[in-house]
Amino acid sequence: MNYEMIAAAARRLDGHARRTPLLSSPFLDKIAGRRVYVKAECLQHTGSFKFRGAWSAMTALPEAARGVIAFSSGNHAQGVTYAARLRGLPALIIMPQDAPAVKIANTRALGAEVVLYDRTSEDRDALGAALAAERGLELIQPFDHPQVIAGQGTTGLEIADQARCEGVAEAQVLVCCGGGGLTSGIALALEQVAPQMRVRTVEPEGFDDVAQSLAQGRVVENPTRSGLCDAIVTPRPGRLTWPILQRLCGPGLVVSDDEALRAMALAHDRLKLVLEPGGAVALAAALFHPGQIAGEAVIVTASGGNVDCAVFQRALAMGDAYAAG
Amino acid sequence: MNYEMIAAAARRLDGHARRTPLLSSPFLDKIAGRRVYVKAECLQHTGSFKFRGAWSAMTALPEAARGVIAFSSGNHAQGVTYAARLRGLPALIIMPQDAPAVKIANTRALGAEVVLYDRTSEDRDALGAALAAERGLELIQPFDHPQVIAGQGTTGLEIADQARCEGVAEAQVLVCCGGGGLTSGIALALEQVAPQMRVRTVEPEGFDDVAQSLAQGRVVENPTRSGLCDAIVTPRPGRLTWPILQRLCGPGLVVSDDEALRAMALAHDRLKLVLEPGGAVALAAALFHPGQIAGEAVIVTASGGNVDCAVFQRALAMGDAYAAG
Repeated sequence: MNYEMIAAAARRLDGHARRTPLLSSPFLDKIAGRRVYVKAECLQHTGSFKFRGAWSAMTALPEAARGVIAFSSGNHAQGVTYAARLRGLPALIIMPQDAPAVKIANTRALGAEVVLYDRTSEDRDALGAALAAERGLELIQPFDHPQVIAGQGTTGLEIADQARCEGVAEAQVLVCCGGGGLTSGIALALEQVAPQMRVRTVEPEGFDDVAQSLAQGRVVENPTRSGLCDAIVTPRPGRLTWPILQRLCGPGLVVSDDEALRAMALAHDRLKLVLEPGGAVALAAALFHPGQIAGEAVIVTASGGNVDCAVFQRALAMGDAYAAG
Repeated sequence: MNYEMIAAAARRLDGHARRTPLLSSPFLDKIAGRRVYVKAECLQHTGSFKFRGAWSAMTALPEAARGVIAFSSGNHAQGVTYAARLRGLPALIIMPQDAPAVKIANTRALGAEVVLYDRTSEDRDALGAALAAERGLELIQPFDHPQVIAGQGTTGLEIADQARCEGVAEAQVLVCCGGGGLTSGIALALEQVAPQMRVRTVEPEGFDDVAQSLAQGRVVENPTRSGLCDAIVTPRPGRLTWPILQRLCGPGLVVSDDEALRAMALAHDRLKLVLEPGGAVALAAALFHPGQIAGEAVIVTASGGNVDCAVFQRALAMGDAYAAG
């Protein structure tokens, strides 16, 4: 895993992934007490950065690959499905039977074959391995996959370039962190092209396995497995991502669910962006934990916008209550 | 008013206005029955395309100008105020006393001096003229101003360029139309750089003065003056804009308020964009009136996103009801 793989992925993504804008608002700057730049990956194909890694992996497959397989009920499923469709390959997505109906429907509508399994009685990995072998499919892991990390890293190349256009050469870069694919990719990219930028992970309270791991210098697991910020709730940093995070990232930041919801409301009001809770934690850290951040400017990823209507309405109500209070 | 003014405005806007993305979603394509490309001007500074015209006007002022004045309680006020601030000039905005408190507060927070007047007892134009004369301020009209039209026209240059990157050389371009500043600017730009693209106006039902005027070949006025799509509710096309609209635009399209709200819900779900009703009418026409549009692809402007929370929640509820039905 190195910078050259990211540069190569950037060439494969060119003209296929979107170059998402780096946005800002004087209203957000005022709250944060410094300039805040938001890399709007919610505007990426399928509503999250996951398309980058999926497209990178898809375009690095061996010639013999007859299709791809992934385990996901979320953003990774949609990114892989859409990338496979653009590449003309079949995608098989394995999801739990009890995944939200709308996610199953969206993934099918994008063109995937969705295979459901029963969490209580079936072994997901065995099912996937059998299907992959039977049909000659390549497994695309959500973060522990070098070409996926390389694809996510292209976000970092764009951040460096766009920040330079804004006159920002030095800043902390806050990244919404689950398994660490996006974070480690951005960190590797910036190490090469903007070494004066420092990446920091942001996680929700109760799921701060990466912050804990960074603090303790060894992989620490989360005890629990589900939360509002579902897109970035993972039990531990990845096998490939952890050494990169440990080498390159500053202390991890942690925000509350309410802070994530308030950041969603502010992104709606001030940037006209729809964010999901897990995609809003980095903005929340910039806005509500300014004392833990250094520098005159801060860059945050807004990594996804695939949010249920009920959760979004909760965020808007929170924004109202906050404005009124 | 000609193409050269737009090209000159583009040079002045470069590095100051945002080059907003041209977005799409396979889900929207399916509803519309053709490819739909959305020019996301809600991501422009201050949440609407108005910043373009304001910056263009601001950078074309005579040396002696000591500041600017505008009449607006909406997007034009915010665009002018922010452009003046970046230019280091004072902005005086005249608003009715009964304008929504949040709009007054936002405009003040961006740096304007806001002067309120009583609609029932005061003459707005006389008040503005007196203040302008007293302080040496230049009036920036919302659409009947050549440099404002030139600035809005830069949207058309970007559309032509971005559509070409998507492989689209020929398409109808639907524009949310109030006084016609954005529409006439885009039409003039495309006449020069993409003459095989045809601009069409989109208005809300009951406020279709431009569609009626185009149909009858003479300026027709709307009888009423307020509506859900407040950003584009104007009584008649402008003095400068009308001849351009008449010469270059195809038949006007009209959508209902409910269709605008449903388009807002779909922009939220599928593009992760926040639109206001007046900024969603062009998308609504593409999605819900496909039979009135020609071609394999259609381009729409999403001209603004400054929407009250209550209206946005109404749109989300409408999206839910529609999805369920």
